Amino acid sequence: MFNFTPPITRLIEELKKIPGIGRKSAQRIGFFLLKADKKTALDLAQAIIEARNQTFFCSRCNNITAVDPCEICSSHERDGSKICVVEEPFNIYSIERTHTYKGLYHVLHGNLSPMKGIGPDELKLTGLEIRAQNGQVQEVILATSPTTEGNATAHYLADFLHKYPIKVTRIALGLPIGADIDYVDSVTIGRALDGRVEM
Amino acid sequence: MFNFTPPITRLIEELKKIPGIGRKSAQRIGFFLLKADKKTALDLAQAIIEARNQTFFCSRCNNITAVDPCEICSSHERDGSKICVVEEPFNIYSIERTHTYKGLYHVLHGNLSPMKGIGPDELKLTGLEIRAQNGQVQEVILATSPTTEGNATAHYLADFLHKYPIKVTRIALGLPIGADIDYVDSVTIGRALDGRVEM
Repeated sequence: MFNFTPPITRLIEELKKIPGIGRKSAQRIGFFLLKADKKTALDLAQAIIEARNQTFFCSRCNNITAVDPCEICSSHERDGSKICVVEEPFNIYSIERTHTYKGLYHVLHGNLSPMKGIGPDELKLTGLEIRAQNGQVQEVILATSPTTEGNATAHYLADFLHKYPIKVTRIALGLPIGADIDYVDSVTIGRALDGRVEM
Repeated sequence: MFNFTPPITRLIEELKKIPGIGRKSAQRIGFFLLKADKKTALDLAQAIIEARNQTFFCSRCNNITAVDPCEICSSHERDGSKICVVEEPFNIYSIERTHTYKGLYHVLHGNLSPMKGIGPDELKLTGLEIRAQNGQVQEVILATSPTTEGNATAHYLADFLHKYPIKVTRIALGLPIGADIDYVDSVTIGRALDGRVEM
């Protein structure tokens, strides 16, 4: 069996460790990095090293950050009475792009998953509990995904937070904007009917 | 507009420079590298640096290599009477995987493309011409892609090589194995008829 020269083989093997990157994609990206101008390749390597060496979890919300507390937790323009709970740091970006939420966040870094051995102790909940008790927080918005695991996590958190005098809400489940109702699955339509609002 | 913390923004921007990696994929890969164990991320960075610092073009065939001549050019098990001409170094891998070719290679690093300003002088042809004259080479197999540019390159090379006493061949164009003839385009079927062989 023919093999690429060792440094290329190693590069392709490392690229294949990225989820969603198979053999063909790894080869394509690898040869792009070999043929692109040297600065492009070395800048990427440097960016990976710096991103790993300069970032850590925010001590308040668990977001990945280079300053502690993170830019959102330390901003004076954010509404400290609301905390939006998300699964992963990049979910913050999806919510920020809506420009409709100005509160704070809490990142769980996962979901409850008995199948994967992830129970409440594995989720980063301590910070959320401390903040729920500080008197400033009035609402916790649960923005986990509407999957089995995301729903289980939302239900667990709702129970967990109900001992504090705060409102606990879940983002709406229903038809996505632009969807043709003919093509939407029946579970989603059922949820949209359950969650109907008066007009 | 919300932005990720600077080292993350920079990592995502660098990843977006890879062709085929858009904003969403760059975020996904970026956060994988941030959340994976540190060794995985730093190993990738190191692999990129080493691949760029340790590789160069083979002085004989233009393959990307860490030793000169490359493993194929310096192998005593290869048939030096045949040279297969390919567009890019990774094309070698596609051909090697067939286990049917044991000759040498020549990498053009591109195709003729008047639209992109790539003429014969931009292709790496000098080495091929020198090897064509050495008396050892009996056949040059043109394995450029059956695209407009790949075909133009093959025709140019055939003309270019016909002044030497060597056989010049082109890989067969026809129906791919497993194809349903109903779904194959008419140009391909036309080429398959032109290239019919006696049984």
